[in-house]
Amino acid sequence: MQKIESASFFIGRNDPDVISFGSGQPDLPPPPKIFTVLPKYTFFKYGPIGGQPNLKEALAQRHIGTMANEFVITSGASEAIDLTLRVIAGARLESFSGRVLLFRPYYYSYPFNVKFAGMETVYSDMDNGRINLEDFRKKIVGCKAVIVNSPANPTGRVELPDTLRAIEKITRELGVKLIFDNVYKDLVYDGEHYRPTGEHVILIDSFSKSYAMCGLRVGFLHSPDKQFIKDVIEMKVHTLMNTDTMAQDMAHAAVISADNYVKEMRDIWRGRRDVIYEGLIKLGLDLWKPEGAFYVFPKVPDNDSARAVSELYFKHNVIVYDGAWFGAPGRIRLSYALNKEKIEEGLERIGAWLKESRVS
Amino acid sequence: MQKIESASFFIGRNDPDVISFGSGQPDLPPPPKIFTVLPKYTFFKYGPIGGQPNLKEALAQRHIGTMANEFVITSGASEAIDLTLRVIAGARLESFSGRVLLFRPYYYSYPFNVKFAGMETVYSDMDNGRINLEDFRKKIVGCKAVIVNSPANPTGRVELPDTLRAIEKITRELGVKLIFDNVYKDLVYDGEHYRPTGEHVILIDSFSKSYAMCGLRVGFLHSPDKQFIKDVIEMKVHTLMNTDTMAQDMAHAAVISADNYVKEMRDIWRGRRDVIYEGLIKLGLDLWKPEGAFYVFPKVPDNDSARAVSELYFKHNVIVYDGAWFGAPGRIRLSYALNKEKIEEGLERIGAWLKESRVS
Repeated sequence: MQKIESASFFIGRNDPDVISFGSGQPDLPPPPKIFTVLPKYTFFKYGPIGGQPNLKEALAQRHIGTMANEFVITSGASEAIDLTLRVIAGARLESFSGRVLLFRPYYYSYPFNVKFAGMETVYSDMDNGRINLEDFRKKIVGCKAVIVNSPANPTGRVELPDTLRAIEKITRELGVKLIFDNVYKDLVYDGEHYRPTGEHVILIDSFSKSYAMCGLRVGFLHSPDKQFIKDVIEMKVHTLMNTDTMAQDMAHAAVISADNYVKEMRDIWRGRRDVIYEGLIKLGLDLWKPEGAFYVFPKVPDNDSARAVSELYFKHNVIVYDGAWFGAPGRIRLSYALNKEKIEEGLERIGAWLKESRVS
Repeated sequence: MQKIESASFFIGRNDPDVISFGSGQPDLPPPPKIFTVLPKYTFFKYGPIGGQPNLKEALAQRHIGTMANEFVITSGASEAIDLTLRVIAGARLESFSGRVLLFRPYYYSYPFNVKFAGMETVYSDMDNGRINLEDFRKKIVGCKAVIVNSPANPTGRVELPDTLRAIEKITRELGVKLIFDNVYKDLVYDGEHYRPTGEHVILIDSFSKSYAMCGLRVGFLHSPDKQFIKDVIEMKVHTLMNTDTMAQDMAHAAVISADNYVKEMRDIWRGRRDVIYEGLIKLGLDLWKPEGAFYVFPKVPDNDSARAVSELYFKHNVIVYDGAWFGAPGRIRLSYALNKEKIEEGLERIGAWLKESRVS
């Protein structure tokens, strides 16, 4: 059976017979207010490179202890991470270098982001999807930065506040940048979500998940470090210029109008989480209950996640992602950005596959 | 008087009393058809990373000898250049390295783009804004790539077809990538515009200048080299994902509807070119007649372009850019993206400054 090398294989496969637990993007519509921007939109010149002032102001009001000029609006969280790492790697030095710590399993882009910034990755393995502080303490020494994602893709974990406080403190003392990827902040179902702060913390966030507007590519970063923000903007002048001004206006409409929308969406996501988690447990799979984001991350019975991905797709029309792409072979990632009927249909197909693989 | 360090100083200075020959962006409205996209727009998911198929198809039809899958839609020409250089620098290698040849004067982002891709710049000085082929032949040896911009920012030159054919041939023989920045292709007033082709040519282009939609950030790159396109898309998955899908739809509406618009705009630009060129000649400045794009690049009488920029801004409310930012101290760059009345008012103020500096 054909081996599927990466998630890119599945991009654009939109056959209606396929149940896709693949791509991590909301299937729900964005907040209605954002549509009011379009009919009267008329500005087509370059905008400020750091972002539209009204959007930065709205963000500052929603993040206690921040100021508008500490934000940079980016073309998705992806660009925010790319700029952040490249600036840390040496925007003002002769060359790019340094080490970045990643927790494994990781969001699949992180190792590429580190590499594309000219840096090297140091891995710290998680225990059942939770950060191992002892391992972190050893490995962080000599790193320029660490990326923490919570709620996390692909684990669905919300990291324990005490762990995050410890990391916040250790990185501050060592002079290491703490890059905190907060894109799933609005999708927390259980437990407390802690957001680290401090001069050394770079917050990465996005409008994509909270407001279901992935394709418009609007994200942001925040740092109280003025020189860092200046360096990011100076880089962005050359690498992209302003993020699409129209999309920024739509993000602004979302931020100022959609508090209820966000709560309603969270309830929908929580319901789906319960369906898929309980369904997979019933099928006998080994997984932890996700506390946030919209992923489940079960082990496959024989540890052969590559075979699972291939057979589920080619024999059962089900897309799942190989844990190996996230540094965790033996597991598969299922995004539950699907309505309950589709989730249930997908669970049935997975059940059929499991039965068949036990027999063979 | 305050020294102005870079073009960033002027970003966002929109005082109505100021005549700005600064930023290089059209002041004219975009083609009316692009507005028809907005009222019915409803797609907010991730799009294909390489770009919307209908837009790539429309581009293939407009570029003889190309195919849709040889294009990648990017967030402006800036992202196209950034991705191109980073892939050439070593997307599939252990580290980023190499040399890139730039012609001097250069578009001010190029040296930063080279540096941010982890590479080094080699300069070849132009003669009166034209490429010196002998110098190029010597310096290109050992480079991985060269960037050619024609019609050119900041010189306003359209490079001679014979020169471009020679560069096309030399780079092919040496196995050097020829990055051809074609963003001003629709703004050629005099002479013939030649676009190099070949397996080793990477075409960079944008909808910003042709269709007056800078702020939406839609550009593209083209290469017949399948591996290169694959590498670019693989990088873009991690650094940005798809370019804003709504802006791509607007770019598509522009491309398929606006051939007449482009011609009408060119006539307007040509008229402005004549006014500013003749005006500066009358003021006694030393400059060549621009053949394309929308910049004039005169010498300042005492070679002190930094003083000119500062005095014109602080004493006369006129924004011009220092040639030094483009590798040509002693000259100033004036963008004529202004209506004729403003150009004439600006010329008067420059005249007053010239008078005053001759007296002092």
